[in-house]
Amino acid sequence: MSLLLSPSSGLLAPAMPWETTEWFNSDPLNLAQLHGRVVVLEAFQMLCPSCVSHALPQAVRLSRAFGDELAVVGLHTVFEHHQAMTPTSLKAFLHEYRIPFPVGVDALRSAHPAPVTFSRYRMQGTPTTVLIDRDGMLRGQKLGPVDDMSLASAVTRLLDGAVPPAVCAVDGTCT
Amino acid sequence: MSLLLSPSSGLLAPAMPWETTEWFNSDPLNLAQLHGRVVVLEAFQMLCPSCVSHALPQAVRLSRAFGDELAVVGLHTVFEHHQAMTPTSLKAFLHEYRIPFPVGVDALRSAHPAPVTFSRYRMQGTPTTVLIDRDGMLRGQKLGPVDDMSLASAVTRLLDGAVPPAVCAVDGTCT
Amino acid sequence: MSLLLSPSSGLLAPAMPWETTEWFNSDPLNLAQLHGRVVVLEAFQMLCPSCVSHALPQAVRLSRAFGDELAVVGLHTVFEHHQAMTPTSLKAFLHEYRIPFPVGVDALRSAHPAPVTFSRYRMQGTPTTVLIDRDGMLRGQKLGPVDDMSLASAVTRLLDGAVPPAVCAVDGTCT
Amino acid sequence: MSLLLSPSSGLLAPAMPWETTEWFNSDPLNLAQLHGRVVVLEAFQMLCPSCVSHALPQAVRLSRAFGDELAVVGLHTVFEHHQAMTPTSLKAFLHEYRIPFPVGVDALRSAHPAPVTFSRYRMQGTPTTVLIDRDGMLRGQKLGPVDDMSLASAVTRLLDGAVPPAVCAVDGTCT
Repeated sequence: MSLLLSPSSGLLAPAMPWETTEWFNSDPLNLAQLHGRVVVLEAFQMLCPSCVSHALPQAVRLSRAFGDELAVVGLHTVFEHHQAMTPTSLKAFLHEYRIPFPVGVDALRSAHPAPVTFSRYRMQGTPTTVLIDRDGMLRGQKLGPVDDMSLASAVTRLLDGAVPPAVCAVDGTCT
Repeated sequence: MSLLLSPSSGLLAPAMPWETTEWFNSDPLNLAQLHGRVVVLEAFQMLCPSCVSHALPQAVRLSRAFGDELAVVGLHTVFEHHQAMTPTSLKAFLHEYRIPFPVGVDALRSAHPAPVTFSRYRMQGTPTTVLIDRDGMLRGQKLGPVDDMSLASAVTRLLDGAVPPAVCAVDGTCT
Repeated sequence: MSLLLSPSSGLLAPAMPWETTEWFNSDPLNLAQLHGRVVVLEAFQMLCPSCVSHALPQAVRLSRAFGDELAVVGLHTVFEHHQAMTPTSLKAFLHEYRIPFPVGVDALRSAHPAPVTFSRYRMQGTPTTVLIDRDGMLRGQKLGPVDDMSLASAVTRLLDGAVPPAVCAVDGTCT
Repeated sequence: MSLLLSPSSGLLAPAMPWETTEWFNSDPLNLAQLHGRVVVLEAFQMLCPSCVSHALPQAVRLSRAFGDELAVVGLHTVFEHHQAMTPTSLKAFLHEYRIPFPVGVDALRSAHPAPVTFSRYRMQGTPTTVLIDRDGMLRGQKLGPVDDMSLASAVTRLLDGAVPPAVCAVDGTCT
């Protein structure tokens, strides 16, 4: 249950702004607009098998299990096969897979395979699950599959404003 | 996410004592000994298919996901086929299915098919998942399959001492 | 176990030629080249959820379970969202999902949403599983999910040249 | 697809008689009565997890997928925890899990943990799947999980009287 950074860790920082070029299922959305709500950002690629089989269905479950206080947001962070995963393809994908939550398209810089938001968050691949608290602070980020229990527990703590138990090392530093 | 009763509901009561005849994976255990810890009591029968395929594996995941502050306890509440689910059969079942947590055998009264603890908690069948807070108050009880997210969220709230959001009706009554 | 038409049904006809514009994992392939082998043609779209979750993994299992006598062939029959499922997108899809068998792209006629081979076989949607015997005769065609047992049984019969049990109606007509 | 022994292997022998003490879902049944039908014998223990989660549901699928020409028969071969898996417990298990096919109880000899039929067939554990052809010859036997495709293919070959492709070694010996 180590998905969350504790405020006492000294490592908390504001979640960086998203840079997107297009949105589906929503008007353009930014973090400031979501202030006051907990945010789970699911960074994915539409042709990443474990995004399709695990992370996106889990994000749908999450958006159904918790109420309006939680904002589940998808971010299409294409860092390979760019011509294969255009916004046109993404739009059909979201329709066919019935993804109900807002999905933004991460912005590309010319001559750079990795998109802007992906790089700002120092993501290493997809899926990456990002947890942001009501104050806009980055509270957790994980590459690869997360289990339902750990994710729901972390989201509950952020919703309740509860401080997760600190993990402290032998030398007294806690994170 | 309605697994938990809120303290403001006026419906909270202490969880009733368990009456057991035998324990596996543990010395005899009662609620008083568990005071200070959150308790998930999983009432099951070893020949109940959805207990075996869903509720028990979920209880094992729960006991692994949360630390020592959570006590996961099984209760073998046999209300049918009594000769088929004796403690001897249960012992082999727990061994073969590698159930790691304590399991008590609900006591039977002569001439009554339903066991004592099962009746005290007014259970209707198996599996039944019971949530008890650090103060020994009964905070939730559900017959049938529960999803991982709802269960982990409720357990997290009990661990944190967080009060679940009240559900209020149009007439102003909240539960 | 009714996937196969029996030769005695009077309904057997040669499987119609495929019309394709491109191939992946293979040189261009046609039915004449496959004469003497049993063929399972899996018609799919890369953005069809049950193709991705069921039919394609099943086709991979099939290609592994049976030897060289069976040719498993994919056919990308795009009849909607054409701009979203171009050969460029398909190529990345096949790479990411590690599809090992040959996949042809069904040819499109201008101003017609349904592709040529799809129409010739009178397909109604995807996935569609097509069974062709060693002599190139069309022996079965099914829209939607097929279970592993029925499919493996039908393929075994075609490999062995076995005649499936006829299904006969009360009036004596058999199919 | 190597579940079946070929008649040309020189290894075929009649399936040995079963020795049972009790039957559920059926009058007492023996191999002679099943002459003319293909038989799949599923040897299991009611407290063996992979029997419960895999082999028995697969046997139910098998009995539904193929017609009356196939006899699916369970054999309760208890070789451990004998007091935990009595016929009384088995009866409730078969009821709760809705097993529809005949199940015999393998006979025990005093002072021998392994039952008689289990020993005759030189079984090593459960589940064990046994394939017997229309003439009562033992055609295949496998310990552990079998996949649906391999099993359905083997059953189809036995139903059709088809000879499986021989597997021949470099020195010319075929099995």
